[in-house]
Amino acid sequence: MKKDDCIFCRIANGEIPSRTIYEDTDFRVILDNGPATRGHALVLPKEHYENLFAMPEDKAAQAMKVARAAASQLVDKLHADGLNLVQNNGTAAGQTVQHFHIHLIPRYENDGQHILWSPSSPTDKELDETLRSITG
Amino acid sequence: MKKDDCIFCRIANGEIPSRTIYEDTDFRVILDNGPATRGHALVLPKEHYENLFAMPEDKAAQAMKVARAAASQLVDKLHADGLNLVQNNGTAAGQTVQHFHIHLIPRYENDGQHILWSPSSPTDKELDETLRSITG
Repeated sequence: MKKDDCIFCRIANGEIPSRTIYEDTDFRVILDNGPATRGHALVLPKEHYENLFAMPEDKAAQAMKVARAAASQLVDKLHADGLNLVQNNGTAAGQTVQHFHIHLIPRYENDGQHILWSPSSPTDKELDETLRSITG
Repeated sequence: MKKDDCIFCRIANGEIPSRTIYEDTDFRVILDNGPATRGHALVLPKEHYENLFAMPEDKAAQAMKVARAAASQLVDKLHADGLNLVQNNGTAAGQTVQHFHIHLIPRYENDGQHILWSPSSPTDKELDETLRSITG
């Protein structure tokens, strides 16, 4: 279902204009107006799902197919050197609009972006403990 | 097909031991030994695909289903506040092992990580030009 006060619902359903690079019954892919790099795009479902966990698995799978096709098109047409696919869940993870979206960020040599994290060095014992917490 | 000199092929197929949180016929999900945060995991296909573009779309869709289920488990069991899903393609995008993988990074309030980019402010004319390059 669509949520009336959600800006991504309104964009995905064409109520707010966007620069659309792909559209089908369930998804719209648009250019981000504040792009990390040239061609930074967003995959938006037309139905409202707050995040990956709220989305049925078949719809998430479909989102990945749409993302893959759009990513290929971006890299091909813009002659990019690579691409990051980023999907954030929760404000603690940097999600700013609470409507599921996938960022497609074409990358270019020396584009000045650093979409990275600082690795840590846990001990084997700490990793084993984490594993037990997850699988136990 | 599996590639003999690929470390992720060897891990995914159980030739090199790993801390596995999920396994099926086509995928293995393991803990990253140099995690961004507690529970940082990797979704690895058992077949060798260099990146998202080299992977058939059905397999990419399947990877997303596996990622979604594992991500839910991580957030649930580790009481995380959010999660980043990150999938890098190409060394220009920070891909360090040339075997498709999805990073699942549980996030915790004040965990000290910043998986972000610097947004830019292109003009409407510049965005329109990018759109034409992609869709033209």
